[in-house]
Amino acid sequence: MAGDEEPLFSQRPSSEHTNDRDLAEEDALLTGERTGRSAGVRGWKFWREVGLFAWAVIATAAVIVLGVVYQRHQQSDSPQTTFTGKRNLIFMVSDGMGPTSLTLTREYLQNQNNLPWGAQLEIDKHLIGQSRTRSTSSLVTDSAAGATAFSCGIKSYNGAISVLPDHSPCGSVMEAAKKAGYTTGLVVTTRITDATPAVFASHVNMRDEEDLIATQMVGEHPLGHVVDLMLGGGRAHFLPNTVQGSARADDRDITELAKSKGYTYISTREEFDALDHGASLNLPFLGLFADTDIPYEVDRRTQNATYPALHEMATTALRALSAATAHSDHGFFIMIEGSRIDHAGHANDPVAQVHEVLAYDAAISAVLDFIHTESTPTLMLSTSDHETGGLATARQLHPSYPDYAWFPGVLANASKSAERLGQEYHAQLSDTNNNNNDTLKTWLTHALEQDLGIHDHTPTELTTLLTSPATAPYTFADMVSRRAQTGWSTHGHSGADVNIYASDPRAAAPLVGNHENSEVGQFLADFLDVDLAEVTEELREKAVLYTLGWMGRVPGVGERLDGQDHVDHYLGDFRRRGRRCVGGVGG
Amino acid sequence: MAGDEEPLFSQRPSSEHTNDRDLAEEDALLTGERTGRSAGVRGWKFWREVGLFAWAVIATAAVIVLGVVYQRHQQSDSPQTTFTGKRNLIFMVSDGMGPTSLTLTREYLQNQNNLPWGAQLEIDKHLIGQSRTRSTSSLVTDSAAGATAFSCGIKSYNGAISVLPDHSPCGSVMEAAKKAGYTTGLVVTTRITDATPAVFASHVNMRDEEDLIATQMVGEHPLGHVVDLMLGGGRAHFLPNTVQGSARADDRDITELAKSKGYTYISTREEFDALDHGASLNLPFLGLFADTDIPYEVDRRTQNATYPALHEMATTALRALSAATAHSDHGFFIMIEGSRIDHAGHANDPVAQVHEVLAYDAAISAVLDFIHTESTPTLMLSTSDHETGGLATARQLHPSYPDYAWFPGVLANASKSAERLGQEYHAQLSDTNNNNNDTLKTWLTHALEQDLGIHDHTPTELTTLLTSPATAPYTFADMVSRRAQTGWSTHGHSGADVNIYASDPRAAAPLVGNHENSEVGQFLADFLDVDLAEVTEELREKAVLYTLGWMGRVPGVGERLDGQDHVDHYLGDFRRRGRRCVGGVGG
Repeated sequence: MAGDEEPLFSQRPSSEHTNDRDLAEEDALLTGERTGRSAGVRGWKFWREVGLFAWAVIATAAVIVLGVVYQRHQQSDSPQTTFTGKRNLIFMVSDGMGPTSLTLTREYLQNQNNLPWGAQLEIDKHLIGQSRTRSTSSLVTDSAAGATAFSCGIKSYNGAISVLPDHSPCGSVMEAAKKAGYTTGLVVTTRITDATPAVFASHVNMRDEEDLIATQMVGEHPLGHVVDLMLGGGRAHFLPNTVQGSARADDRDITELAKSKGYTYISTREEFDALDHGASLNLPFLGLFADTDIPYEVDRRTQNATYPALHEMATTALRALSAATAHSDHGFFIMIEGSRIDHAGHANDPVAQVHEVLAYDAAISAVLDFIHTESTPTLMLSTSDHETGGLATARQLHPSYPDYAWFPGVLANASKSAERLGQEYHAQLSDTNNNNNDTLKTWLTHALEQDLGIHDHTPTELTTLLTSPATAPYTFADMVSRRAQTGWSTHGHSGADVNIYASDPRAAAPLVGNHENSEVGQFLADFLDVDLAEVTEELREKAVLYTLGWMGRVPGVGERLDGQDHVDHYLGDFRRRGRRCVGGVGG
Repeated sequence: MAGDEEPLFSQRPSSEHTNDRDLAEEDALLTGERTGRSAGVRGWKFWREVGLFAWAVIATAAVIVLGVVYQRHQQSDSPQTTFTGKRNLIFMVSDGMGPTSLTLTREYLQNQNNLPWGAQLEIDKHLIGQSRTRSTSSLVTDSAAGATAFSCGIKSYNGAISVLPDHSPCGSVMEAAKKAGYTTGLVVTTRITDATPAVFASHVNMRDEEDLIATQMVGEHPLGHVVDLMLGGGRAHFLPNTVQGSARADDRDITELAKSKGYTYISTREEFDALDHGASLNLPFLGLFADTDIPYEVDRRTQNATYPALHEMATTALRALSAATAHSDHGFFIMIEGSRIDHAGHANDPVAQVHEVLAYDAAISAVLDFIHTESTPTLMLSTSDHETGGLATARQLHPSYPDYAWFPGVLANASKSAERLGQEYHAQLSDTNNNNNDTLKTWLTHALEQDLGIHDHTPTELTTLLTSPATAPYTFADMVSRRAQTGWSTHGHSGADVNIYASDPRAAAPLVGNHENSEVGQFLADFLDVDLAEVTEELREKAVLYTLGWMGRVPGVGERLDGQDHVDHYLGDFRRRGRRCVGGVGG
């Protein structure tokens, strides 16, 4: 690079200080050839300048090289987004989905579509870790305690809706986000007053106080309205008890209360479609499309004119929130729940389960598509509150050593959930002209073949269905599970660790690996840069002046809350009572 | 930084070109004050030099800053190790350990030691992803197909020991490593001829050809001896059938064959202890400490004078391999298996399981300790071949809605595995002086209380044990499982995804997230920088000249291999035959 090389920078840009004499001297400096002037004195000073120039050039080149290398390194590590300024957070909850639900659904999908074993669900591509799920009252959490860990970043007891074991309210990440200037949303497929959505915008001591939860969620709440957008099911706790479909104890109309607080309220698919994928949706907004749950996806498919799909609600909500925050300093925070994966687990129904997980996976895809087009940096984080059912993709049917297999094709032969078939069976039983034993046998035989794809039912199975119609949904599910060789250990929850997924592993770095569920909640708050303690403080201050008992009744000692009686040690209850082996007893 | 600032570099080092005049001029350059000479002409040239100098200094400062930032960034990303030159690979296999085994064991440990819920197992801290486990013949793999995916990086059929579905051998990563110059080892707690270790150093068409596997593993193999160090159980297939404890069909003594090929052979704890933690171990080496399996950890604890623990064998092997490769261009490759987590799953024995997982976790800790002191960069990678048992940390005992709980304390009350208690019961049954009904009842009552901590057995449970002694181990395990509310779906394997762990997530980056088990094998080969295809080629060439039928019999179409009959679609087998509800039937 010194003077004996070819001219450097021969096309160098001119500067404002350049003149002809300077150029001549500079060329001399660079090429080592003398200019016409003062040739004699040049010696030392000339070489000093050459040295200085070479030093500067080399150092500058090094800066450029290092800069490029560092830049590339940064880029390869975090492909696209930084989350330093305005940002959105999409928190997705797959209620009751354990790790084995993924295996079940992925292998079902591969079998159905004749895909190679390498074919993954979309969600599979984003695995970053696992969450431990125990609550303060049990090694097996319920959705209330699980979701409170997400909303408050603190563990509590089974049944708690954003209250701590001392029955004081804890500030939720959605309350903190709202306070900080974020726009907020909740999208679910179950009741919007169910535990997982409830924890983000209400505080009650027992999760079954859904009447109270409904009123709090539309703004009868110490902090005013917290959620700007709600889509899902659960009209039951919003409609007065004078109306068909209501489950309220009183005659208050919470949809009217919502409207009085500024909400637009809709309840039909037509109204949903008129939202034009969110373009015509104005906040605050409440859309409730079912009295209780939106049907399982496997059944909703044939009632598409009545109920929107999860991914449709998700997309509509995201577009509306994006538009609403386009000119805001703050983005949005939304929780989207695949609520009924859990219900399929409770029902031990593998058919309902695979379609619920596929629907959740479709929602994940829709969310990722949204993120790719959204101008505000957006993170998707997905996890479950717990596993439900103790699902296994294997089931031993005989005392002899089991085959190593399970049969997803059996699930593909079924076209209805056990819940739906149970409802149809009960309708048949109520039809006094057609409910004699022979008619029912014919009806059941046809239904089993047509709706569950079961052509080899046994007389014993039929007898069980006829003599125990109350448990028919369990029998239907067991008949399918047995033939598919899918195993279940309980109709309740289990304590298994659940998976965590993220659209950007680096942005979700604190959750990479194995973590406590409360760390998920802490991460949500940290990501949004909001202060949960501050909201807790404000809540407690304002609550003092608020309606007495606004959080509902405090449970008694040992009172059962969703199957949990706060006993954590063995009390001698191990006996098998009654008949547990419903269905499938043949041969 | 220009001339109007305080002098820069006032303590600058001298250079060999420095002289007084230069110093004076340099000071002038830096301070902007004139020297005594040629004051008039200085103007332009002076400022040009000042500019050049400032440019050089700023650029150099930028280089230093960028260099430090980049260096720090690099350090924070990969804390310690690079794997470009000589390296070691420790591949750990937790046979049959699904995600729920971790929940079970972690919560057992917390309960036992009164630890907070944040307390993790060591392995928990290193979670990086999950592996999909299906084989070519079933959605539910066996250990042979699972381990072949690890050894060859290719999926094969259940029962395959490093052979492909066309029954040709596939080169294993250990064969390729040996060929490349690595030193190799296998450490297990089951038979060294069992599927998981076998795939690394032998090729047979059916996993039960363990006589053949034994001979191949000590060097009767187309490529000669592949494993330099073996520690574990499984003398049965090494000892001639003329000897007590042998399971060979012939009278060959494979320990003698091993010695003739240079191996040192030991078989006792005393000889193991004399190895002085590996310092006195010379390769090649064969140490077999049990005829078949080393006892479950829960039972081994009380037979410590007879059997070494997994972490002891692991540490001994690592130290020996480290010493043996100290002056080599290549490091070592070792597979360490927690073999009997799988057996505890097959037995549906949660007591045996938690202690096996704890023993595996202790081995993980020992390996990580080794890595911290080893001078050669060493990576630990850990995964499972499959889940066993369909374990759930929840179990519904009654038709009524289940409590959300499971009780680890019940497991802590037991001090023996169901297998061990079964052996003692059978010994009692064989004692003709003491096997009348009353004596047996007394013995059983005492054993249940003393060894399983069960004080509330029912008459029905006792009757089951007395009338069905052959299945007594299952009954013992079920009695504990029921009281602890741990659920199981099968005595075989399940298809659940299993976890992947690594000591250095960046070095194991290709396995972060959800991956196929064959990708694990490919990663092992890539990490060691060895060529599996080349070894496959060599194997096939040499095999032509080798003993006919050296890989054993080819299974017939539909022949059962470890419970797998290659049928992947439902064939109408769903009926419950015989009595499956052994044990626990009371009240």
